[in-house]
Amino acid sequence: MKEPPLRALLFDVFGTVVDWRSGVAREGEALASRLGLPRTDWGQVADRWRALYQPAMEEVRSGRRPFVPLDTLHRENLEAVLAEFGIKDLPAAEVDEFSRAWHRLDPWPDSVEGLTRLKARYIVAPQSNGNIALIVNMAKRAGLPWDCVLGAEVTGHYKPDPECYREACRLLGLRGEECMMVAAHQGDLIAARDAAGVRTAFIPRPLEYGPGAARDLTPRAEFDVVADSLVALAERLGC
Amino acid sequence: MKEPPLRALLFDVFGTVVDWRSGVAREGEALASRLGLPRTDWGQVADRWRALYQPAMEEVRSGRRPFVPLDTLHRENLEAVLAEFGIKDLPAAEVDEFSRAWHRLDPWPDSVEGLTRLKARYIVAPQSNGNIALIVNMAKRAGLPWDCVLGAEVTGHYKPDPECYREACRLLGLRGEECMMVAAHQGDLIAARDAAGVRTAFIPRPLEYGPGAARDLTPRAEFDVVADSLVALAERLGC
Repeated sequence: MKEPPLRALLFDVFGTVVDWRSGVAREGEALASRLGLPRTDWGQVADRWRALYQPAMEEVRSGRRPFVPLDTLHRENLEAVLAEFGIKDLPAAEVDEFSRAWHRLDPWPDSVEGLTRLKARYIVAPQSNGNIALIVNMAKRAGLPWDCVLGAEVTGHYKPDPECYREACRLLGLRGEECMMVAAHQGDLIAARDAAGVRTAFIPRPLEYGPGAARDLTPRAEFDVVADSLVALAERLGC
Repeated sequence: MKEPPLRALLFDVFGTVVDWRSGVAREGEALASRLGLPRTDWGQVADRWRALYQPAMEEVRSGRRPFVPLDTLHRENLEAVLAEFGIKDLPAAEVDEFSRAWHRLDPWPDSVEGLTRLKARYIVAPQSNGNIALIVNMAKRAGLPWDCVLGAEVTGHYKPDPECYREACRLLGLRGEECMMVAAHQGDLIAARDAAGVRTAFIPRPLEYGPGAARDLTPRAEFDVVADSLVALAERLGC
């Protein structure tokens, strides 16, 4: 039986499309310079903040906590991280503003060109754990040309819950085989395929955790495409 | 007190951004010619189909029926309209396809230019009763450059329920005064303002119900802007 044509690409965002670590560190450095804070390794702050991301979502995935948008989890986790680094007594408005550093992340150098080329032929939509405001503000600032914003806040579930991927396909009126999940994280791709039968594109991003972080990015499953950038993905898909 | 700056424009779509009557009629004529159907006034079919739109949504708004996407209501209403016009025994796949004529409506001549100019300064998002797939497919075909797709399927409520407008602002992380509802229908604007305190732009579309349909489009409330096209709106907003 012939495969149905591919119609939509669903993207992980943090790490796959944008460089969260550098962006968060840049915002932290700006905050420190504005407020005259003690010397801090803001890359490490970013890493610790990111490390609290999965446990916070797990509270929601497990049902122990009703769904709240990622901005809320980021704000709560930031309090914990600042305390850990001994950064005290920041004005609440500054903490609020820094907690939205995730709205102001820069894309990887290939992201805008890759998405723009892919958009000419396919629906391109984020299927991110980021909430709508975060993804929209990021896209406006960075020029990411999404066709629509899907993701946790639209589906009411955090990845890798299977409902995320199934709902994304259903909301686009498409079957799983007509969609492709694109991510730098193999667990996301495997969960999407298992839940919704989508195709998969693995985009290893060796710099996601900074230049010093050695990680094994060898594919540990069969993916339909493995490409080292969104431009390379566009080329592989004939865009 | 100074008004906060405007950040986002929320658009009604059917009638305001696209010409539903001509688009539905065009699709009906193509269907008739493909299947050799008897001569039918497809503009009248469009009018009758549209007339069943509010009563169908009212079943959902009243709580008598759980939320279903507009594609489902369009499909059900189409059956009734075809029966009314004596059009019988169409293959189900043809009815399905025609029921999605609303995915393939043409924009008014000013819509793409107007939205493109507005998008350079503001978030532009549909706040339509159309479901996500409908709005995305329409946008891809017509070149409507939305930043994200809000609307009934995202908020879980059909306009003019107040939740629609409140949720749209909340999902963008904005207060009502930072948003403007843009519509050809005064009831939509008044409901949005009353529910969420948004600003309002009235775009009268005298051709919405066809060239022969005389309608009184005199503003019956105070709107922040009255403009006869989306390009004129862009100009009024300095874009």
